[in-house]
This record gives sequence, C-alpha cells and structure tokens, in this order.
Amino acid sequence: MAGEKKQGLQLLDFWLSPFGQRCRIALDEKGLSYEYLEQDMANKGELLLRANPVHKKIPVLLHAGRPVCESLIIVQYLDEAFPATPPLLPAGDPYARAQARFWADYVDKKLYDCGTRLWKLKGDGHAQARTEMVEILRTLEGALGEGRFFGGEAFGFVDVALVPFTSWFLTYERFGDLSVEKECPKLVAWAKRCAERPSVAKNLYPPEKFYEFICGMKKRLGIE
Amino acid sequence: MAGEKKQGLQLLDFWLSPFGQRCRIALDEKGLSYEYLEQDMANKGELLLRANPVHKKIPVLLHAGRPVCESLIIVQYLDEAFPATPPLLPAGDPYARAQARFWADYVDKKLYDCGTRLWKLKGDGHAQARTEMVEILRTLEGALGEGRFFGGEAFGFVDVALVPFTSWFLTYERFGDLSVEKECPKLVAWAKRCAERPSVAKNLYPPEKFYEFICGMKKRLGIE
Repeated sequence: MAGEKKQGLQLLDFWLSPFGQRCRIALDEKGLSYEYLEQDMANKGELLLRANPVHKKIPVLLHAGRPVCESLIIVQYLDEAFPATPPLLPAGDPYARAQARFWADYVDKKLYDCGTRLWKLKGDGHAQARTEMVEILRTLEGALGEGRFFGGEAFGFVDVALVPFTSWFLTYERFGDLSVEKECPKLVAWAKRCAERPSVAKNLYPPEKFYEFICGMKKRLGIE
Repeated sequence: MAGEKKQGLQLLDFWLSPFGQRCRIALDEKGLSYEYLEQDMANKGELLLRANPVHKKIPVLLHAGRPVCESLIIVQYLDEAFPATPPLLPAGDPYARAQARFWADYVDKKLYDCGTRLWKLKGDGHAQARTEMVEILRTLEGALGEGRFFGGEAFGFVDVALVPFTSWFLTYERFGDLSVEKECPKLVAWAKRCAERPSVAKNLYPPEKFYEFICGMKKRLGIE
C-alpha cells in the first residue's frame, strides 16, 4: 500500500499479545498503515533478534528500519513521530500526561503479573493473587471515576494500555472465581464503550480465545 | 526561598533512594529549587499516604500541591512542565527520545532487582544474580558506546536514571565478588565523569555509606 511505503512502518508482533495489541490499536487510532509481521515465539527469527537483541521480545516497531521496543515506549513514539495524528497522551498538559503515564505504568507493573499468578498458582499464592486482582481492578475503576474514558472524553494513552486486558477478564473470572462486573461495573461499562471503537474491535480477540490459549498453556506446562 | 515559592516544588524522598536521587539530580540540572521533605519509611506519614495512595512510595514530587509519582515519570514531567530549563530527554528527536526511554526502562526492569538478589540470596540464586549483573552492566556499557554520556555530549535522561546506581557498584563488587572496573571500564569512566557534575556530587553518598546500609539491612532481616 502507498501508506505503508510512505510511512515505512512494520510491526513485529504475536497475535494474542496485549502489548502488541496496544501498538496495533494506537496505529489504527492514528490512521497509520503498517505491515504486520507475525513472529514465531517458539522459534524466534533473525529479524526479531536483530531488532530487539536486549529483550528478544515483541512488539517491535520498525520505522524506516529503525527499531523501537517496549509497547508504551512505542505508543509514545507514535505520538511524537507523527504529531499530525490524533494524540494519545494529552497534548500540552504536562500534569495530565504525567497522570496518564502513571496509570499506564500501574497496568504494566501490576495487572499482567497478577493475572499470570492467578492461572498458574494454587493454594495461598492463588488466594493472594485473587485478592490482589480485585484490588487492582478496583483501583483502576477508581482512576476511571465517572469518565467516559481514562482520557476523559477522548480515548487516550491509559485506554490503549489497559484495553487489551479486557479480553482477559473472562480468564480472570474463571481462574479467580470472581465477577469483574460485580466488583467493577464501571470498568466493564468502559470496556464495552472501548469495544465499539473500530481500532479495538479489529485488534482484540474474543475472550474465549484467550481462555483456551491459557488452558493450552497450562497443559503444556503440566499445571493441573 | 523566592524560587521555592515561585515554583512551588516539594520532594517527598528518602536520603539513600536511587529513585529519589534521580529527581534531585534532575531538579538541580534544571536549576529548579525545591523543598526537600525527608520521609520516615518505617512509619509513613499522612502527607506521603495522601500524595501516593496507590504505591505509598517515595519519591513524590508535589507541584503546587499536586502529586507526581514514579521517578522516571517525575523527570519527564520536569522536562514538560519547565520547558525553559535544559531538557533531559533530547528535544525534537522522537527516535532518540524513544531510545533514551528504552534504556532508562532497562535500568528500572533489570538493575535494581538483580542488585537486591545479589546481596539477599545464597547458592544458585546468588550465582545466577552475579552472572546477570555482569551481563546487565556490560549491556549498559554497550549502550554507552564511545559516548561521553548516554545522552551523547549532553548529560541526559539515561544518565539521570543510571547514575544513582554508581554508588552501589562497591556493594555489587563486595557481594558479587566482581570488579566493575575490570568488567566495564568505560562505564566506570562514565561514572567518574558524572561524579564531577555538581548535581551528582551533591546528591550521591559515598559508596561505603550504601554498603553499610545494606549490611545493616541484612542484619535486620536476619540474613547471614
């Protein structure tokens, strides 16, 4: 496509990665076309190892061949490298930008790790993860407040950072024996608003798909 | 002081925190005066709990009473809220900014945790931490390359993120039975260049001080 050639954007990614989904959603929100390069994570290719020799992880954005790694850094890069596209961090408001970075960082530090413990662990570790998960989701709901999006009226940086994990809510519910809707009705309403956006609808998979993937992963790891 | 009143900056911090030191160094590099508020981490005060209810951690920057948390977010906030001061992230170069964010994030994800395992663990865990520490320091040395600073000729974001940990090198050496100078001579030369800057000299403590602190911590935790 003309757009691809013009912008020279390629995304090294893995279909189910919430971190990769952030980048895909951000690219679509900005109307930037790109070449999607699915990676075999069991047998990492030369291109990925060259583009991200430090972490050897997806997602990696290649812009005119130059790699940018780490999803939140990629999203910020897109804001800064394509200033004529709709901004995801609130432009011109340093305090709101710092707050958005804080909540996106909170998602990174807390949610993924806790979700993993929820499906991996048993006994006390599992009970602890369940308690933490409810606390994390409630804290996020508190940050959302009465807003339409985390970015207020506009879908923004924190929305991009968190929305891929809405596909995991079902998995959290099944492994955590909890109801996200009951614990956090506003967060679930927010997830539904997000799902109406083409950028989100296009890039997220049905929650069942993720649940099956985790069940398969548990089997492969020999976790009953 | 007039400057403090004008800018309304206060820093909730703990003297030995490398994360707090980043903020102090950034504030000094920018010539911003601020009120330093030492926190009792064993008995956290009302102000800290109100300013950072999510993580309950220092550092917190208060700007006209509004809190900004997480050291790298604070440093970026200072760049954006005080655009007339010397920038720490390279201004106007989105790719260089993304690279700087990547390396600062690498320090956050790798160095602190590995250093903690080095003084806390024994046996295989300790051996693993030692191997990783050498790898982390060499990776950082590779990122520095032949540059005067990580920011090239200018002391910048990655320098601010990493320099507090140079006070820990002695502790890494003693608990890891390794020589940072032997493994990474360029990194040590960089640390010496940094130490000549007033912002760094003023805010870092002698490496022996940190080593003593960790020895005391080990005693309190009952680690032989």
